[in-house]
Amino acid sequence: MKKHYLLTPGPTPIPPEIAQKESLPILHHRTSEFSAIFSEVAEGLKYVFQTKNDVLILATSGTGAMESSISNLLSPGDAALVASCGNFGERWGKIMEAYGIKPTIIAAEWGKTVNPADIAKALADNPQIKAVYATHTETSTGVVNDIAAIGEIVAKTNAVLVVDSISGLVGQEMRTDDWKVDVVVSGSQKGFMLAPGLAFASVSEKAWKLAETAKLPRFYLDWRKMKKSLATKETPFTPAITLIVSLAEAIKMIKAKGIENIWAECKLLARASRAGMKAIGLELFGDKPCEVVTSAKVPAGVEGGKIVKMLREEFGVSIAGGQGALKGKIIRFAHMGYIGKADILVGFACLEMVLSKLGYKLEKGKAVAAAEEALING
Amino acid sequence: MKKHYLLTPGPTPIPPEIAQKESLPILHHRTSEFSAIFSEVAEGLKYVFQTKNDVLILATSGTGAMESSISNLLSPGDAALVASCGNFGERWGKIMEAYGIKPTIIAAEWGKTVNPADIAKALADNPQIKAVYATHTETSTGVVNDIAAIGEIVAKTNAVLVVDSISGLVGQEMRTDDWKVDVVVSGSQKGFMLAPGLAFASVSEKAWKLAETAKLPRFYLDWRKMKKSLATKETPFTPAITLIVSLAEAIKMIKAKGIENIWAECKLLARASRAGMKAIGLELFGDKPCEVVTSAKVPAGVEGGKIVKMLREEFGVSIAGGQGALKGKIIRFAHMGYIGKADILVGFACLEMVLSKLGYKLEKGKAVAAAEEALING
Repeated sequence: MKKHYLLTPGPTPIPPEIAQKESLPILHHRTSEFSAIFSEVAEGLKYVFQTKNDVLILATSGTGAMESSISNLLSPGDAALVASCGNFGERWGKIMEAYGIKPTIIAAEWGKTVNPADIAKALADNPQIKAVYATHTETSTGVVNDIAAIGEIVAKTNAVLVVDSISGLVGQEMRTDDWKVDVVVSGSQKGFMLAPGLAFASVSEKAWKLAETAKLPRFYLDWRKMKKSLATKETPFTPAITLIVSLAEAIKMIKAKGIENIWAECKLLARASRAGMKAIGLELFGDKPCEVVTSAKVPAGVEGGKIVKMLREEFGVSIAGGQGALKGKIIRFAHMGYIGKADILVGFACLEMVLSKLGYKLEKGKAVAAAEEALING
Repeated sequence: MKKHYLLTPGPTPIPPEIAQKESLPILHHRTSEFSAIFSEVAEGLKYVFQTKNDVLILATSGTGAMESSISNLLSPGDAALVASCGNFGERWGKIMEAYGIKPTIIAAEWGKTVNPADIAKALADNPQIKAVYATHTETSTGVVNDIAAIGEIVAKTNAVLVVDSISGLVGQEMRTDDWKVDVVVSGSQKGFMLAPGLAFASVSEKAWKLAETAKLPRFYLDWRKMKKSLATKETPFTPAITLIVSLAEAIKMIKAKGIENIWAECKLLARASRAGMKAIGLELFGDKPCEVVTSAKVPAGVEGGKIVKMLREEFGVSIAGGQGALKGKIIRFAHMGYIGKADILVGFACLEMVLSKLGYKLEKGKAVAAAEEALING
């Protein structure tokens, strides 16, 4: 009987039109019906990624696509650069460690963004660097890196630029080709409005050149097999059929609304979220807040974990807390995918009640009013 | 408007009770609700695998679980043994090749099974072998290997036994612990009656010892992370939530029927399928047919690909043809998961029409009659 409201940065709510597709009788993947859907989706993903490059489809969650961007581009002993500013940026380094790659790491403090000039300097210092790994929207802190600027810098070198836009894509402006990003990885359960289990990687010509000679081991995550499947419409292994059928529906919805309109809508929701937080005295976390998730510091005297727990248990509202070093220190509201204006208001109304019950002094209705104001007046 | 009948060895039809679960509002994976389902499923899988060992859950298709059994058990330079008798057996060798492992390969002819004595000999010849990789039901040919006998042999050595039971599990008798199998891998889209995108690996204590020291690189497929998640109920990465929720329903259905009863039912369907093939003069393919898929040779003068195509296009019936060297030479009827008695009869009735249209001489109704007879009288 409990009604749930998801304001989490993945999974995000699934629209009924898409959810219904999940329960249709399953298609066999070696049929003309499925091949047609597969082609349509492969083409549609190019629009979503704003690229002319191939977009590969993996039956993994987002981390599988991240790992594939390492095992398909690098060889043992290769130099690589990681530009990190949070939990997901650090994941690039952890995956490399598992593969014996010792990257140069630019680690901005959590909550800050990466300074593109630092990347330029690192590349100038070490022209052997084959690939630069960065994060678009760093979900763990809620900031957005300047991928356009980083793209300009990396494009002038022999290195390729790989960007984790798992939480960013669809909601936050990403112009893969205009911004000269060689590889963009994403996942199904955020802006795409799907269940988790599907991941994507767009791959430029410059990146394909590396993929053809890279020596790190890979089989299930081998891009070369996936590229072949784009031509033959026959996936190398059994694909996540129901998710791909749902993805076709999601892409139709995204196209119908227009990617730029979705970016604008997320921007509006982000403004409303920031306004709501500030109106009840919560300090925003992060230097350059992104449009898909809003982070605020837990006020002194309140236990962060309790906010998240009470919101879920008493009101069915799921938001995210902090990860790693930020555990208990921040709360995060997501506004991407099928999260709408009214959901943000539900989130703030319930947050007001919970904070109030936890002893934090606030004037009830103020966060909601500020968010309403922003939603109406932009 | 086209009505589909799936008689393919993956995906198999999804029961409505399970399909409906796929379209429910998505749960967040860091909640007590999801943790409860995750625990229930982890426990239920032990029943399905007939093991006391941990059963790990991967968000990949079956090949991801196969690859994980190589990257988590072996180190560069390790000796391994592959006992292969078809396309999926050969896949073990191909994955190892990608990782630079050079296995000893016992390759039985496609259609034959592996002789357990050959494994005993290879292990005696090379006591350095760390792991033996075999296939339970070889889906590409339709035979079943004697895993109980292989288990006895391998258990006497220091090597671990890894078995691909992706198509076998649930439908074909598999007694993981009694048969001393260290690792059994499986996938969601066959006997489990789910959509593809989820894979499993049961891991024995003997295998965990190898996993703790194995040096091949892995991150997304790292069993150590997954083991930890069984204790904490927190998956290392976003899990395939909707598939896991569906899996809980599938396990309930499997338990309600009883695994031994499911094995018996598949045995009956296999007998009926073999009887139907023979009744219209089709020669069975394979030495020791398994209970989850029945293979028959395409009769002389008929194009195998046309049978599969015409069945699908004219009658909506999906069966499988041959793979690799067997392409065009065999047809395969699956009888596992949610494929029932009447589906087999539909398959044969339409096969009779198609073969007849393709110029093959047969008496209409004979395959159906023989299958009926077997279904009634066992």
